[in-house]
Amino acid sequence: MTGAAELTVRIGVIGTGMIGRDHVRRLTQVVAGSQVVAVNDVDAARARDVAESLPVPARVHAAGADLVVDPEVDAVLVASWGGSHEEYVLASIAAGKPVFCEKPLADTVQACRRIVDAEVAAGRRLVQVGFMRRYDPAYRAMKAVVDSGDIGAPLIMHCAHRNRSVPPHYTRDMAIVDTAVHEVDVVRWLFGEEIVATRVLVPRKNRNGGDLQDPLIMLMETQSGAIVDDEISVNIRYGYDSRGEVVGEEGTVSLADVAPVVVRRGGVYSGRVDGDWRERFVRAYDVELAEWVASVAAGVVPTGPGAWDGYAAQAVCDAGLEALHGGERVLVALPDRPDLYAKS
Amino acid sequence: MTGAAELTVRIGVIGTGMIGRDHVRRLTQVVAGSQVVAVNDVDAARARDVAESLPVPARVHAAGADLVVDPEVDAVLVASWGGSHEEYVLASIAAGKPVFCEKPLADTVQACRRIVDAEVAAGRRLVQVGFMRRYDPAYRAMKAVVDSGDIGAPLIMHCAHRNRSVPPHYTRDMAIVDTAVHEVDVVRWLFGEEIVATRVLVPRKNRNGGDLQDPLIMLMETQSGAIVDDEISVNIRYGYDSRGEVVGEEGTVSLADVAPVVVRRGGVYSGRVDGDWRERFVRAYDVELAEWVASVAAGVVPTGPGAWDGYAAQAVCDAGLEALHGGERVLVALPDRPDLYAKS
Amino acid sequence: MTGAAELTVRIGVIGTGMIGRDHVRRLTQVVAGSQVVAVNDVDAARARDVAESLPVPARVHAAGADLVVDPEVDAVLVASWGGSHEEYVLASIAAGKPVFCEKPLADTVQACRRIVDAEVAAGRRLVQVGFMRRYDPAYRAMKAVVDSGDIGAPLIMHCAHRNRSVPPHYTRDMAIVDTAVHEVDVVRWLFGEEIVATRVLVPRKNRNGGDLQDPLIMLMETQSGAIVDDEISVNIRYGYDSRGEVVGEEGTVSLADVAPVVVRRGGVYSGRVDGDWRERFVRAYDVELAEWVASVAAGVVPTGPGAWDGYAAQAVCDAGLEALHGGERVLVALPDRPDLYAKS
Amino acid sequence: MTGAAELTVRIGVIGTGMIGRDHVRRLTQVVAGSQVVAVNDVDAARARDVAESLPVPARVHAAGADLVVDPEVDAVLVASWGGSHEEYVLASIAAGKPVFCEKPLADTVQACRRIVDAEVAAGRRLVQVGFMRRYDPAYRAMKAVVDSGDIGAPLIMHCAHRNRSVPPHYTRDMAIVDTAVHEVDVVRWLFGEEIVATRVLVPRKNRNGGDLQDPLIMLMETQSGAIVDDEISVNIRYGYDSRGEVVGEEGTVSLADVAPVVVRRGGVYSGRVDGDWRERFVRAYDVELAEWVASVAAGVVPTGPGAWDGYAAQAVCDAGLEALHGGERVLVALPDRPDLYAKS
Repeated sequence: MTGAAELTVRIGVIGTGMIGRDHVRRLTQVVAGSQVVAVNDVDAARARDVAESLPVPARVHAAGADLVVDPEVDAVLVASWGGSHEEYVLASIAAGKPVFCEKPLADTVQACRRIVDAEVAAGRRLVQVGFMRRYDPAYRAMKAVVDSGDIGAPLIMHCAHRNRSVPPHYTRDMAIVDTAVHEVDVVRWLFGEEIVATRVLVPRKNRNGGDLQDPLIMLMETQSGAIVDDEISVNIRYGYDSRGEVVGEEGTVSLADVAPVVVRRGGVYSGRVDGDWRERFVRAYDVELAEWVASVAAGVVPTGPGAWDGYAAQAVCDAGLEALHGGERVLVALPDRPDLYAKS
Repeated sequence: MTGAAELTVRIGVIGTGMIGRDHVRRLTQVVAGSQVVAVNDVDAARARDVAESLPVPARVHAAGADLVVDPEVDAVLVASWGGSHEEYVLASIAAGKPVFCEKPLADTVQACRRIVDAEVAAGRRLVQVGFMRRYDPAYRAMKAVVDSGDIGAPLIMHCAHRNRSVPPHYTRDMAIVDTAVHEVDVVRWLFGEEIVATRVLVPRKNRNGGDLQDPLIMLMETQSGAIVDDEISVNIRYGYDSRGEVVGEEGTVSLADVAPVVVRRGGVYSGRVDGDWRERFVRAYDVELAEWVASVAAGVVPTGPGAWDGYAAQAVCDAGLEALHGGERVLVALPDRPDLYAKS
Repeated sequence: MTGAAELTVRIGVIGTGMIGRDHVRRLTQVVAGSQVVAVNDVDAARARDVAESLPVPARVHAAGADLVVDPEVDAVLVASWGGSHEEYVLASIAAGKPVFCEKPLADTVQACRRIVDAEVAAGRRLVQVGFMRRYDPAYRAMKAVVDSGDIGAPLIMHCAHRNRSVPPHYTRDMAIVDTAVHEVDVVRWLFGEEIVATRVLVPRKNRNGGDLQDPLIMLMETQSGAIVDDEISVNIRYGYDSRGEVVGEEGTVSLADVAPVVVRRGGVYSGRVDGDWRERFVRAYDVELAEWVASVAAGVVPTGPGAWDGYAAQAVCDAGLEALHGGERVLVALPDRPDLYAKS
Repeated sequence: MTGAAELTVRIGVIGTGMIGRDHVRRLTQVVAGSQVVAVNDVDAARARDVAESLPVPARVHAAGADLVVDPEVDAVLVASWGGSHEEYVLASIAAGKPVFCEKPLADTVQACRRIVDAEVAAGRRLVQVGFMRRYDPAYRAMKAVVDSGDIGAPLIMHCAHRNRSVPPHYTRDMAIVDTAVHEVDVVRWLFGEEIVATRVLVPRKNRNGGDLQDPLIMLMETQSGAIVDDEISVNIRYGYDSRGEVVGEEGTVSLADVAPVVVRRGGVYSGRVDGDWRERFVRAYDVELAEWVASVAAGVVPTGPGAWDGYAAQAVCDAGLEALHGGERVLVALPDRPDLYAKS
């Protein structure tokens, strides 16, 4: 076969570390209608390796800012370290280009706010944040049930976020800003309202985690008064598990166990638990980028989480850190939602 | 057939309301080796009706105190209203007779304390309290897993206690002392330690409950620092459901769904949820009384929850009420456990 | 306590081997309102041991026939070897006493027929056969769904009867007459009609069974044309498992997995499978005898499987053996059902 | 964005009916690295509509044979009616182009044989047949368990293929050649051996199907003696359901229920059953074409089912039809597998 002509979204990728390379692979081999045409990384050699590995080699930019304004780049994907996100997202907004930014939107709530302000000033939604759970079939089915009204108004949600283990550099604060942040976004999305207060409970410590304070329970309150308890257990050994149950006035909806087959052997029937988040959410990542690429190709606002969602999540995590450190209930500081982000 | 001779525990039942009559039926028709020989009730006519309905009519005592000292009564079952429990349990201790007392052991923590003191003074364990969940096959299997060490030390427990609906006289306080008290006992038993503090969260209100504050979330902390969250939803319509998951260092154990058959029909596969607690725990009640009768017949200390357990549960509920009313974390006031109640 | 007077069914037990002793224990310790007053066994010493172990020692009869006519025996339980059943059941009918006979009703179809004829001649139903699955909560729930019409007319049933292993003396024929006979009875009961033909398929052999032909698949056809496939796997190692799904016009009903708790550990979530039939059906055995004793006490016809059911099951098994040996489809030879056994 | 240059497999699609259009959509919007450049259909207007709906309009060929030899077509997808498959597949082999052919490979076993002979003569595997279940995550997990040896040698498989309803033109024979053919392929693939004999059982008729003989049970025997029972119920109303359990010497593996969430409401807990095969196997279709396109791009033999699999499935279905019509066990006529199709 040859290089064929078809309508393709040309994407520039900033950050070619583990997750960046995974997105490059996804855009190249999995998602239809997209091509990675430019890459950038603080490590130029790493960027070059990725660029040259592609079917049609991509251009390597020395600076992320140059990549953003490259006229052959239709849209930008930011997968660099969190501290650099603000610069590239603001540059994309300035260039009027759609930008997909891995979570967090930015590493401080102030930086997130500046992005929101810039987008509002531009008057147009260009930013999507990488909260991939919204693309997971199970979470989507859960939202469909909540939205159907079949279980009545949602009053409570029970969540658990469990990892087999975490690397040595993982800290107590990361349990909030890197781990629980996923439930923060899921709760805002499922309930369709903001989280207004939080508190963190500190249970007996798991010896598997050494000195790390693990597990934690993060409590969240929404505007309507719904309460969420989120267990964060990051050394539980048995597997990666994402549990959730929304309790409504008439019933509940829970994430089901996801093993495709049941094995009867050795005195038990059993189903496999996923080993890590990549395995659990592989499909969500694929759908997330496919839908984003499709929205860019169609020239419409992406349906995924936007700058406001990134900002609000960061504000809740900030409150969560204060609650963790101080032991008390902490209110979430969040201004009114700009009209640009009005729910349809 | 005729009246045959065999060794039978002769039981006197105080209180022949709904639950008392159910226990009379159970002792007569379900449990082997027991016979109800005497009854008492504040409503003498009701007591007489029950007495005369038996295969061998029972004696009717005008006063509970008389029933306790009846020489043909080997053991006493107290199913009268909570305010009268103290008198009959103390009388049974004084008479040196085994006594099974429906929950609560007594209606104030002080009364519970007097029972414990009396039993300690008597130097012999005679009291069992009707926390029937300890006899449910699922809770027993859960405890076996926890005790096996297979999931490591238990760090967290998630509970939910759900009722379809409650009668009009049900109050916010009853959610603690009548409903959550079951999880209080289960947690003490599963974890093998005392609950030292509690807090109550008040979520958005379920409209099915009218003015009642429903649901609630009761948080409990154990001596070792384990944390329990207990959802109490008493108007959830879908059925009676008792959920639980103990989270350990290596894994978890959960109560499974209990439907014996799965029906595939009308676009879903489904299993039945029980309608009420009688249906859910029918087997637990049967086993509870069967094991109690067997312990009386054998002249050994019953393996079930004793006076100390009734007292400790009441102390936790007292703290729970204070937490519910005040909104803050409340410590549980409990003296050291007397040697009589030392764990074997 | 003392020997108390109450109305008790006095039972004589013929056969005090493993299952006989288990029934003696059940009648003594589990079932209310029954007492074993007489025993007999081909091994007199064994009978004496059992008699003397009871709270009130039972009389030992040298011959089963003497036990049956003992005036202090209200009802007879036959748990001796299959070849002796006919004699004791016929004697019980002659004595006008209710008799519970462990399966098989008799060891030949001709003997079963003689029992049916005797009972018809006596004009009164006195015989119950020990097909305990009819008392299992799951099979009962399955029958309730079938009878409700919710899944439409039943067209097909899939069954599996699985054992971890069988003893060395287990033969290919026993897979039909000792093992599949349980599904034969279940199918007749669930479908409410007779089985008219059968065929046996012989799959690849399980090496765990050595020379034994294992597994087998027994196919059955009912009067209305429903077809049943029954997998019999008796060396499958993983546990004892009784599977079943009735396929109707609108849906299906299946036996659910019965583990009371789910454990998440070591990469899987899992539930326990029972180890053997005693464990799986312990509750069914208890209910079976409790209901039988209650029917005897009440002087009514037992609701359980009767002589006709024992006879019909044996006729199907006879056809099954012929089908196994010959490889072809074999019709079941069964006369019309006498009026005595008309369905209500 | 513009027409970007990248390496793309250029595909010609013959047949633009329902399934053909769905594949065009998939190749255009879902699968990365493929482009539909040419189409053909017996209905030229329909082909033109599809061609013009593409981002880059495809060429319309008046004849399928012309499409196959179009130098801009790298690979061919055949989705026309079954009777025309042979011509296009043979043409593709003659042209040395990879061809993906929807099932059946051809509509007679003789035609299938001619395709196999042509491919053997060409000395190169070019043909893939659209048995999509091999790409379903659950069937793949099932095969992984079987291949792992964890359940020992497979001895039996239980299957059920259930549809809510079928259109009026659906015939009894279609239950074999259109419906059960999927289990025929799955069994050959899971067991890694040929099916050597079959028999069809005819249960009581479902009134939902009118005059149609529904359900059926197709029995299959493999070379090693394993036996498969396959229930085909095509008017069962409750949903589309694909059930399967492989029974090995040590245990079993079953397809799990696939609902992503569990809803507790109205007295039951429940999970959704898919409505039809498109919904159930949407992911399998996507993966099937993605892997096929990747194999074409890489110039390697596709890993999916080939001409031999299409031929063998047809031979089993032929035997199945004879068994259905005649009522007896029928041997499958199949020559030795040519070396070209040797398993690696």
